Amino acid sequence: MPELRQNLANKEWVIIATERARRPEEFHQGVRTKPVLPERSPDCPFCPGNEAACGTEHFSLGKPDWRVRVVANKFPALVPDPPPAPPHTGLYRHLPGEGIHEVIIDSPSHAKHPALLDEAARRDLFLAYRERFRAAAKDPKVALTQLFKNHGEGAGTSLVHPHSQLIGSSVVPAGVRHRMDEAQKYHYKHKVCVFCAMAEEERRLKVRILADTPHFTAFVLFAALSPFHIWVLPKRHTATFGDSTDSELDDLSQVMGSLLRRVDRGLGDPDYNYLIQSSPQDRGETDAFHWYLSLIVRLTRTAGFELGSGMYVNTSLPEESARFLNGIPDGA
Amino acid sequence: MPELRQNLANKEWVIIATERARRPEEFHQGVRTKPVLPERSPDCPFCPGNEAACGTEHFSLGKPDWRVRVVANKFPALVPDPPPAPPHTGLYRHLPGEGIHEVIIDSPSHAKHPALLDEAARRDLFLAYRERFRAAAKDPKVALTQLFKNHGEGAGTSLVHPHSQLIGSSVVPAGVRHRMDEAQKYHYKHKVCVFCAMAEEERRLKVRILADTPHFTAFVLFAALSPFHIWVLPKRHTATFGDSTDSELDDLSQVMGSLLRRVDRGLGDPDYNYLIQSSPQDRGETDAFHWYLSLIVRLTRTAGFELGSGMYVNTSLPEESARFLNGIPDGA
Repeated sequence: MPELRQNLANKEWVIIATERARRPEEFHQGVRTKPVLPERSPDCPFCPGNEAACGTEHFSLGKPDWRVRVVANKFPALVPDPPPAPPHTGLYRHLPGEGIHEVIIDSPSHAKHPALLDEAARRDLFLAYRERFRAAAKDPKVALTQLFKNHGEGAGTSLVHPHSQLIGSSVVPAGVRHRMDEAQKYHYKHKVCVFCAMAEEERRLKVRILADTPHFTAFVLFAALSPFHIWVLPKRHTATFGDSTDSELDDLSQVMGSLLRRVDRGLGDPDYNYLIQSSPQDRGETDAFHWYLSLIVRLTRTAGFELGSGMYVNTSLPEESARFLNGIPDGA
Repeated sequence: MPELRQNLANKEWVIIATERARRPEEFHQGVRTKPVLPERSPDCPFCPGNEAACGTEHFSLGKPDWRVRVVANKFPALVPDPPPAPPHTGLYRHLPGEGIHEVIIDSPSHAKHPALLDEAARRDLFLAYRERFRAAAKDPKVALTQLFKNHGEGAGTSLVHPHSQLIGSSVVPAGVRHRMDEAQKYHYKHKVCVFCAMAEEERRLKVRILADTPHFTAFVLFAALSPFHIWVLPKRHTATFGDSTDSELDDLSQVMGSLLRRVDRGLGDPDYNYLIQSSPQDRGETDAFHWYLSLIVRLTRTAGFELGSGMYVNTSLPEESARFLNGIPDGA
């Protein structure tokens, strides 16, 4: 029978559609659809040797043989110094598209997406994430920092060389405000962080857990919005990703390696996004919010129901998804 | 320069990404990707002759040669009489998947998607929409009625015979509550319906308007979340679609015919969803909300930024999209 489940942190309902549920292995992509890529591609702006084709470099590890590199996006969604917007003449509100938009080139390899990176390279990548997060937090025009990765066309990527992105927005979207408000309400009522409570519950129940390490808890969400919807939470309560310590970063990059290898092998290199949810600048460190990484495998398409209601129909059972992923070897 | 625009009704910000904007004609699908369908398909459960393959019939126009037919979904996302959910043992909230899920078979034709239906057939379809909306509104287990259409695989459809769906949910999703709250706030502050105000503004500005008929206003949204994101609003203030009169339905089906033909011709039969946003049962008729139809053409994929922030990046200019669609002939 179908079940309605509510995410405790953001109060979103999801329909777990058992009548149309598929077994985890049925989500395997089957025949490989992604091209096999060379280690270097002469025309790729992100490959070593083509550095001049990129925007301004903001950060790199290793010189001149860089291991990870952060550059300004050449087609930015937001820009640092836009001219003032034309005055408001009518009913609607608009603002200059102010903010920052950076590209994090994951590694020099054109071919190695994050499931294939070795541990040291992934550690460098997560270090770059943290450094750019910290820099964005100091930028007075940034109200919210979103760090994300799009893997595969179905996840919205256009350039194949593995890369991540950071957008620092000058406005805080309504959805983020609602998320913060719900966490705040829970904290006010129960005097505990709702994310800490969820991670503890998952460790206790053990039916959706994917990783339980010194610093992180990873699990398929009870109210997963889509098949294999995963959260990774630090055990230490902190609201901002930039606050992560070196040993937390070590641990996180290992947890992510294990998760991404299992997703890659178990589901046949599917498209996915991962993204870091961190407290907006005007809330900063708070007892009520907890940063987390969300991994969303793009196996299904949203339809009119989701677009209209904001409520998702998930055709998989989160407990089965977790059992399936835990059966996949995660060795590098 | 990129621009941030806010939807006045729901306060959602969107990035109009001028640096990566494409011209309207660049969104054309090019070579046809959808199969050319026969007028009848022997194996299709929705084609005449195969009525027994469907769930219980709830409604039809014309007997025995039906013109539109509404049946229970055989793989429902929600069901009318689920057994009680297992008791809450832990932290999370869950409920039985209670509700209704109907399939509206648009017409007997396997081939004619809504842009190709003749006026009389489209009028029958919208009549069926209203009748099922009214029936759902009387059902005590339904808290919110969502009516939607998925056209094409990229819009989430699986069965090709053109059909629409109605889901009556026993819970009201958080996103719908937020939308209602924002409309309520605007009404409290300005003493007018924000949707009435937006439609009036669009008729005054004339730069995004697509249709201005006796009963409806259709326009590309100032803060369109994606290319060719269109709203169709009734001129008479009413919060519930089920309240539509016969002459309003006549007009709406003509407006939709014109819009869908222009989208079909101008963009090469793209995938799209349309859906009706109507007041949830517990708010009912209210001066603060206004029902509308939203048409979302699926030309781009959401990426990690949208998934994380809830804020969209739109790579088209709404005013250019409107000008483009207004240049496409809409004759049947």
